[in-house]
Amino acid sequence: MDDVLADTSIKIISEINKRLNKSYSMPALLNNDSLKLEFYQDYLATNSFLKEPGFFLDIPVKEKAIEVVQELSKHYEIFIVSAATEFPESLKEKLTWLEAHFPFISWTHVVFCGHKYMIQADYLIDDHEKNLKTFTNGTPLLFSALHNLHIHDYQRVNSWEEIANLLLPNE
Amino acid sequence: MDDVLADTSIKIISEINKRLNKSYSMPALLNNDSLKLEFYQDYLATNSFLKEPGFFLDIPVKEKAIEVVQELSKHYEIFIVSAATEFPESLKEKLTWLEAHFPFISWTHVVFCGHKYMIQADYLIDDHEKNLKTFTNGTPLLFSALHNLHIHDYQRVNSWEEIANLLLPNE
Repeated sequence: MDDVLADTSIKIISEINKRLNKSYSMPALLNNDSLKLEFYQDYLATNSFLKEPGFFLDIPVKEKAIEVVQELSKHYEIFIVSAATEFPESLKEKLTWLEAHFPFISWTHVVFCGHKYMIQADYLIDDHEKNLKTFTNGTPLLFSALHNLHIHDYQRVNSWEEIANLLLPNE
Repeated sequence: MDDVLADTSIKIISEINKRLNKSYSMPALLNNDSLKLEFYQDYLATNSFLKEPGFFLDIPVKEKAIEVVQELSKHYEIFIVSAATEFPESLKEKLTWLEAHFPFISWTHVVFCGHKYMIQADYLIDDHEKNLKTFTNGTPLLFSALHNLHIHDYQRVNSWEEIANLLLPNE
C-alpha cells in the first residue's frame, strides 16, 4: 500500500519539512546521495509521526494506480496487503483511505500484517526488499521508491503504467 | 481470534441479554435447538453492536488459551489471523486486547484479513467452516463453538487442553 498505491514518501517529505523547517523535495533527493543520507537521519529522528492519528488519511494516490488496479481487477483477484500492524492508528485510516480511492476493493480483500511471508499469491508488487525476499512461491515485482533504487535483484516496475504493460493482456 | 482465543460468544450473549432484556446462557443454548434459533434471530437483529467502539476490548480469554499458546510458541511459529477488516473499529482494539493478554505475540505475527484463503500455514485452528474449507495446504482444526457443532467434516478440538495434547510434544 505505502509507496505502491499511496505516495507515502511525498507525505513523509512534507511532514519532515514542516517539523524541521527543511525543504527536501523528491527530485533533489533522487539525485543527491548525501542529501538522502541527511534526509534519512531526519526521518529516523522524527518518524514517530507515523503513529500519530490522521497520518495515513490524506496521503496522495500514486499516479494511475486507481485506473490500473481497476483494470487489473478484471483479470486478477487483487489483495491489498499492508504491513501495518506496527501502527495501530493506521489500520482504520487505511480502510477509510482505500474506501475513498479504491471503492471497488472490498474489505474482504484487504490484509493487514506485520510481515508478508505468510501470504500466498501469484505476484507481489512491493517497495521493500524484505517482503520480496521471502515471497518464494510467486513472482516478486519491485515497485521503485526512493529507498530501493540501490536494489537490483528483482524485476523492477517504475510506475503503474509499467505494471499495466506487464500484467494486462494486450488489447 | 474470536471464539478461539477470545470467548466472543459469551460477550455476544451478554450483549443481547442486555439490549433485549433476555436471559440466554451458553448451557441453555447448547441443549436447545429452538432456543438457539431464537437466539440467532436476535443476533441478526442486533449484531451491529459488533461495529460499536469498545466491543472487542473486554472480551474474556478462552480457558487455558494463554498458557497453551505460550507453550506452543516454543515449538511453532504462531500467527494470530483474524477475519476483522469488516469491523474497522475492531482492529486497534484487537491489537490492544492481544497486547494485554498475549504480550509474547508481537505485532509482526498478527494478521487482519477479510477471509483467510491467502494465508499459508501448517495448521489453521478456526471456528468457521468457511475458513477451514479453503485451507488446503495444511491441517485444518475446527475449534468447537456454538455455531459449528453441526459440522462433522474436520478434526475437532474442544478446548486449548485438547490442542496442547494434539500439538505439543509429549513430555
